[in-house]
Amino acid sequence: MLRRRVSTGVKGLDEMLSGGFEEGKIYLVTGETGTGKTIFSLQFLLDGMLKGENTIFLSIDEHPEYLIDDAESLGWDLKEFISDGKLLIVDANRYFSIGKEIESISENIFYELKRFAEKMDAKRIVVDPLIPPFVFTDGTQEIRNHIKNFICNLEQLHCTTIITSEIPAGSNRLSRYGVEEGIASGVIILSLIRQETKFIRALLVRKMRGTPIDIVYRTFAIQPKDGIVIAGPLT
Amino acid sequence: MLRRRVSTGVKGLDEMLSGGFEEGKIYLVTGETGTGKTIFSLQFLLDGMLKGENTIFLSIDEHPEYLIDDAESLGWDLKEFISDGKLLIVDANRYFSIGKEIESISENIFYELKRFAEKMDAKRIVVDPLIPPFVFTDGTQEIRNHIKNFICNLEQLHCTTIITSEIPAGSNRLSRYGVEEGIASGVIILSLIRQETKFIRALLVRKMRGTPIDIVYRTFAIQPKDGIVIAGPLT
Amino acid sequence: MLRRRVSTGVKGLDEMLSGGFEEGKIYLVTGETGTGKTIFSLQFLLDGMLKGENTIFLSIDEHPEYLIDDAESLGWDLKEFISDGKLLIVDANRYFSIGKEIESISENIFYELKRFAEKMDAKRIVVDPLIPPFVFTDGTQEIRNHIKNFICNLEQLHCTTIITSEIPAGSNRLSRYGVEEGIASGVIILSLIRQETKFIRALLVRKMRGTPIDIVYRTFAIQPKDGIVIAGPLT
Amino acid sequence: MLRRRVSTGVKGLDEMLSGGFEEGKIYLVTGETGTGKTIFSLQFLLDGMLKGENTIFLSIDEHPEYLIDDAESLGWDLKEFISDGKLLIVDANRYFSIGKEIESISENIFYELKRFAEKMDAKRIVVDPLIPPFVFTDGTQEIRNHIKNFICNLEQLHCTTIITSEIPAGSNRLSRYGVEEGIASGVIILSLIRQETKFIRALLVRKMRGTPIDIVYRTFAIQPKDGIVIAGPLT
Amino acid sequence: MLRRRVSTGVKGLDEMLSGGFEEGKIYLVTGETGTGKTIFSLQFLLDGMLKGENTIFLSIDEHPEYLIDDAESLGWDLKEFISDGKLLIVDANRYFSIGKEIESISENIFYELKRFAEKMDAKRIVVDPLIPPFVFTDGTQEIRNHIKNFICNLEQLHCTTIITSEIPAGSNRLSRYGVEEGIASGVIILSLIRQETKFIRALLVRKMRGTPIDIVYRTFAIQPKDGIVIAGPLT
Amino acid sequence: MLRRRVSTGVKGLDEMLSGGFEEGKIYLVTGETGTGKTIFSLQFLLDGMLKGENTIFLSIDEHPEYLIDDAESLGWDLKEFISDGKLLIVDANRYFSIGKEIESISENIFYELKRFAEKMDAKRIVVDPLIPPFVFTDGTQEIRNHIKNFICNLEQLHCTTIITSEIPAGSNRLSRYGVEEGIASGVIILSLIRQETKFIRALLVRKMRGTPIDIVYRTFAIQPKDGIVIAGPLT
Repeated sequence: MLRRRVSTGVKGLDEMLSGGFEEGKIYLVTGETGTGKTIFSLQFLLDGMLKGENTIFLSIDEHPEYLIDDAESLGWDLKEFISDGKLLIVDANRYFSIGKEIESISENIFYELKRFAEKMDAKRIVVDPLIPPFVFTDGTQEIRNHIKNFICNLEQLHCTTIITSEIPAGSNRLSRYGVEEGIASGVIILSLIRQETKFIRALLVRKMRGTPIDIVYRTFAIQPKDGIVIAGPLT
Repeated sequence: MLRRRVSTGVKGLDEMLSGGFEEGKIYLVTGETGTGKTIFSLQFLLDGMLKGENTIFLSIDEHPEYLIDDAESLGWDLKEFISDGKLLIVDANRYFSIGKEIESISENIFYELKRFAEKMDAKRIVVDPLIPPFVFTDGTQEIRNHIKNFICNLEQLHCTTIITSEIPAGSNRLSRYGVEEGIASGVIILSLIRQETKFIRALLVRKMRGTPIDIVYRTFAIQPKDGIVIAGPLT
Repeated sequence: MLRRRVSTGVKGLDEMLSGGFEEGKIYLVTGETGTGKTIFSLQFLLDGMLKGENTIFLSIDEHPEYLIDDAESLGWDLKEFISDGKLLIVDANRYFSIGKEIESISENIFYELKRFAEKMDAKRIVVDPLIPPFVFTDGTQEIRNHIKNFICNLEQLHCTTIITSEIPAGSNRLSRYGVEEGIASGVIILSLIRQETKFIRALLVRKMRGTPIDIVYRTFAIQPKDGIVIAGPLT
Repeated sequence: MLRRRVSTGVKGLDEMLSGGFEEGKIYLVTGETGTGKTIFSLQFLLDGMLKGENTIFLSIDEHPEYLIDDAESLGWDLKEFISDGKLLIVDANRYFSIGKEIESISENIFYELKRFAEKMDAKRIVVDPLIPPFVFTDGTQEIRNHIKNFICNLEQLHCTTIITSEIPAGSNRLSRYGVEEGIASGVIILSLIRQETKFIRALLVRKMRGTPIDIVYRTFAIQPKDGIVIAGPLT
Repeated sequence: MLRRRVSTGVKGLDEMLSGGFEEGKIYLVTGETGTGKTIFSLQFLLDGMLKGENTIFLSIDEHPEYLIDDAESLGWDLKEFISDGKLLIVDANRYFSIGKEIESISENIFYELKRFAEKMDAKRIVVDPLIPPFVFTDGTQEIRNHIKNFICNLEQLHCTTIITSEIPAGSNRLSRYGVEEGIASGVIILSLIRQETKFIRALLVRKMRGTPIDIVYRTFAIQPKDGIVIAGPLT
Repeated sequence: MLRRRVSTGVKGLDEMLSGGFEEGKIYLVTGETGTGKTIFSLQFLLDGMLKGENTIFLSIDEHPEYLIDDAESLGWDLKEFISDGKLLIVDANRYFSIGKEIESISENIFYELKRFAEKMDAKRIVVDPLIPPFVFTDGTQEIRNHIKNFICNLEQLHCTTIITSEIPAGSNRLSRYGVEEGIASGVIILSLIRQETKFIRALLVRKMRGTPIDIVYRTFAIQPKDGIVIAGPLT
């Protein structure tokens, strides 16, 4: 049974993905700091909210109020959606400061996320990022188990989900721990490609299970109201 | 005694391999995430099933239902083969979540695989991947022993077998732990070769014991129904 | 609510940042040794002081008297501001020599900083650098926790703040521990770009949450009185 | 006293080595997986057998029956030599699976090898490879001692000997542990040199004690009956 | 108060530094082995001695008699200065051979250095090198503390001081432990720049607090009597 | 007092070194395996022996009989010198196989070397190599202490001495542990420089205390009777 497609909310991207993400699957949006992962994620939720869906943004390293400010600078009024009950921003910062056992953190976060998702009947979820940058740089077995279990658990919520992963600058990895990419159903890379003395924003659909893709860098702009807008192929 | 050849199921590849794989041997299909390793593997089993052979797909990091969906998106109806008893998809995810001792996991998986292979009189097996990406990144001695023992055990089943290995993005290794390549009878690499701003899919037969080969990158496409189809040499 | 902008004090930079830094946020100024991080930081405080604001410079690896000398060589008379009570230079060297527990050091420094900031009603703070170069080269979990907690605590002071991070020469990281960049609201890189046999000073705004930016290297000069002055784009 | 030369069995190589290997010395044949190390080694033994010498092939990571199959695919009938008592293939796989102490493994293997060599009055020996790929990736002191002791012991057998070493793909080392090269009397490298989109087979005599050499890559082909045949210099 | 300038003693360098080093500060002279660090350091002391100042050379990895020989080969008669009481060469080799605790070594060396400096009323000091090459390659916390404490202590002697640091060949670091560069008031790099098949000697003023600099490689020669002489910019 | 010069024995090299090595100092000859370090060392001793000096060759990883054979292949009859009492080859292999404590090994070797040197009134010594390749790859503090102490001890013998150091292939270090280069009075590098598909032998005088040098690669050949002969500069 071919799955229903869910728009990514990004102008020009759905056409590249046979209509969008597959409903209920987990996608990885990856890139260095400042490449637009959070904007991409918000845009994905906005698309759903404008279609009447309820959504959850699990914010792991940004304060909710900052997130709201940043959205406002793009002309997106998250507060309205929050007061309408269409958007729930969960501040997951505190989980990481209470205890150190990543396993119990992981379970607690998931348990709360699940409770909210069921209560709201959420259709879209963002986890930004899967692992906060200040935690566990070297990919220990504990982190890997957390990633695996968390993603497997997420799948059971049947929400279309974006997880983000911050790649350390100067690395050529696809994701922070080198494993998220294998577990996710698709991988979208947001890049800053250096061209002589400036940097161009570009997006690459690197992997998309069950969807034929051209693996070509496409430039994009970040614009007020529209957020990320795919321009043409990188030249 | 020269061994019988078994078609790989990939259009254009058998001619490059003096007719295909050698019957009963173990081959490594390797590449980064999203390069087509699972499609290659399925195609190999489909070829056998269409010739009346029974086959097993040991799925270690993908849910069977997702595998079936992804195959369907290529126009391959795995459910039919499953209900005909020609294909068994074994979900090995759970082995890795029960205990942590890779040695006993390895033995349990092999024991179950053996039981099924004998019961079904299977001719072709896929193990995808040999080691799931979230396990043991650094090649400890335990993993190496597991790889060695598992492959040696596989040989005793006398099935023609593909094992896959996911190479971390940005590495130039042939396989995840750098040892699978030495033990397998042949190594096929699926690559995404960057050409300026896009990526080309290419296949390289890097090693094939007992078979003369040209070690030349060949481009391929992924097409509905046909799956992987070798085009010409990479230019 | 869009935040008020605070001038960076650097000629030519505010225009690139929609008016300057966002009030009350934390910015990272990063670069190898000798790239001008301390000058940038002083300039930021001077701008505030000339507008009547009180400011704090937390000096972690330079003696206050040396800092004053270096400023004087640019024609900046810090002593005047100090005697006017507009500038407080806190010598944090001693914290690092008393004990070894980074956690208690971190708490002590923050506690003192907080006390001063509240007493003076400071508007701008500089922490130069976040971690002194002779401490803990490998990014242990303790350092990461320190960085995270210290930055989170800083946010509660509601001062616009610059933290600096010295990148080891020859690395292509954005910051010393690879995590400061993710937590800060913006990242400005000061570089020495080698062009054949000489080095050009250049500044890159690499990330700026809530602010549209062109990510382009711009050359700058260090001039008496004006300090850092943006010239044109790097060619 | 200048030592007698022993043909390598490789067409075109003896001329490059003042007649061949020095009798009774140990040579290292090195290269990535699939470069022809085993074929080179077999060819060296075949040359001896055709001259009436007895030979031993210590197979450490390939099953003897597979070795025989692979040889047959090149038109070499090893079974005949085995039944004539000219070739003994020792399957050393089991040594590595019994115990873990590399020191005792090493002693046991050498002891058995010595016994056979003396009984058969063997003139040529191949150890393929010195260390199996699944063992001990990082060059611990134990491995180094094993390598040193094993090679020193081999010298006492007074057989002309080839040891092979598999270099991990993508490394630019001369041998697996970086020490075999220093102890062996000569080093021959089998390479796959990438030229745009294809790979060329090339051989380099990198070191040859007591023999003047040109250190030039020469291409080679693998042909039925003749095995490795040196073509011209790489261009 | 702008500090008095002290000539470096190197022809052509003072003009590049607004007159020379700042009196009483610590400068780092860095480079691979054989780049001229010791010659630079001696030249700096000679300049002072010819102006009547007393100086100390703390020799950590060269025997004083060898140092005297090497100076003689350049036409510098150190013995004369020694007998005049203008130069004291302290042989610090033995400190490192007595105990292993870097902390106590560090304290002992500094204590002795201080005693001599006060007794002689020394104006210039050389520490060559800060850490001898055979000690502690990886930058442990102990070494970092030693470096920090030793440099902080040196500052209290109020002598203009050069410390040298040997960079391992083939690295692109600025100093041995990557921290000296941040603590010193200035960094001068002596390089051997490969140009095809030869190496050119070049000097780079990489950092100079409180002094405007052009960061440009300049070639230099080592000449009898004059020692290091700056030629023109590297081309 | 300028030191007397001792010929290196290499045609064309003395002219590059103001007459040769300085009497009584320690020089490092370094290079990958097979670059000619042992030949260079023998040639240096031969030069002395032909002038009537007594010499010692401390062979650490080659059997003396092999050394004699290799010399013979170049037309050098070491046996004659040995029977004349002009050359003593000390086989130091066994020291490394008795115990594991590098410190006591080091002392024992030096003690024996000293005894012989005094008894023979030796003028030239070769230590080939300082550390055998199978020992201690990572430069532990023990090895560094050994290197330092051994070289310091050697200096007390007042013999002109060559120590060799084997650089692992593919590294760009100057010596095995990165410290020998700093302690030795001079460093000569023997290289194989790849030019397209062949390798050229080249020698570089990288460092020579007290001697002005041009740091230029010069090609060399290895010829019967003459051994290493400097040709022209590398082009």
